Amino acid sequence: MARVESKVAEAKTTTKTTAKSETTTERATHRGARADYRWDGVEERPYKEDDRALFKSITRQVLFSDPELHGELRYFEVAAGGFSTLERHQHMHAVLILRGRGHCLIGGEIKSLETRDLVTVPPLTWHQFRASKGEPLGFLCMVNALRDKPQLPSQEDLARLTADPAVAEFLDGSPHGA
Amino acid sequence: MARVESKVAEAKTTTKTTAKSETTTERATHRGARADYRWDGVEERPYKEDDRALFKSITRQVLFSDPELHGELRYFEVAAGGFSTLERHQHMHAVLILRGRGHCLIGGEIKSLETRDLVTVPPLTWHQFRASKGEPLGFLCMVNALRDKPQLPSQEDLARLTADPAVAEFLDGSPHGA
Repeated sequence: MARVESKVAEAKTTTKTTAKSETTTERATHRGARADYRWDGVEERPYKEDDRALFKSITRQVLFSDPELHGELRYFEVAAGGFSTLERHQHMHAVLILRGRGHCLIGGEIKSLETRDLVTVPPLTWHQFRASKGEPLGFLCMVNALRDKPQLPSQEDLARLTADPAVAEFLDGSPHGA
Repeated sequence: MARVESKVAEAKTTTKTTAKSETTTERATHRGARADYRWDGVEERPYKEDDRALFKSITRQVLFSDPELHGELRYFEVAAGGFSTLERHQHMHAVLILRGRGHCLIGGEIKSLETRDLVTVPPLTWHQFRASKGEPLGFLCMVNALRDKPQLPSQEDLARLTADPAVAEFLDGSPHGA
């Protein structure tokens, strides 16, 4: 943990130094909503660049990221039956379900999610989001702009998590999300 | 500006020192959405504590605020025909319209707002949100956790803004928001 924090502190200094020159020109004050939870001027990106991460049918749109903002707001959309990577990290997730329904795992607990529910993922807590089988699950996720990289579970972590049959069932994709 | 930044840096140090002891116990990982854009465990608060600020029919709910988060996510709801304070500050606003429609003033520009539109309020830019006359305007607003206080316009600032007839009309509440 000490290592992570010192990395973050270092990165912060760098950002502060360069902030002025990066921000001046590119801010659009208004970006209209388009159909189907897309936005003008917002690019739909791949969910992850990490090849080792397991996930299914999920896209990422960065709605707000600016050197003057200490947080970022992203929109993730998990297609019906899809799921996000099972991972953990020091930084927190602050999530608002914008569209659809589904389930999430947070630590050892499974929560049923409805539109506009709020989810807090505490530091170093294993988590995964799964859409229902019938419709996409779209959610806003606020994170610190400067944050550590996600960790993937080891075989031991997975064994510990799936020792609980409900968690094993969740990670298998059934019957939750039906 | 130098003064504001040094204050923020000072406040940040303080928060970092106390973060551990403040966070450990109180996080709810899941808070359900209630009817009418309210949430379990989220208090509906007055919009402002500043008596000098002019505003009408607006409430505030803090959805995410945590010592580990460098940003905060709040939900503001302006009742039909209501408006937020005309103000500016060094910190930015990152806004997503969650409910209804309306208009906003950002600097000298008036923007028409629809559900899910994105609004960026750059540093030190005068801004105000107004709901349409027919329905509430609800929006999420991400800000830095550590931020400067809003400034209210002086008579000179108001004279400069209302020199533009469209802005004068907007601040009068007509015909925008009809």
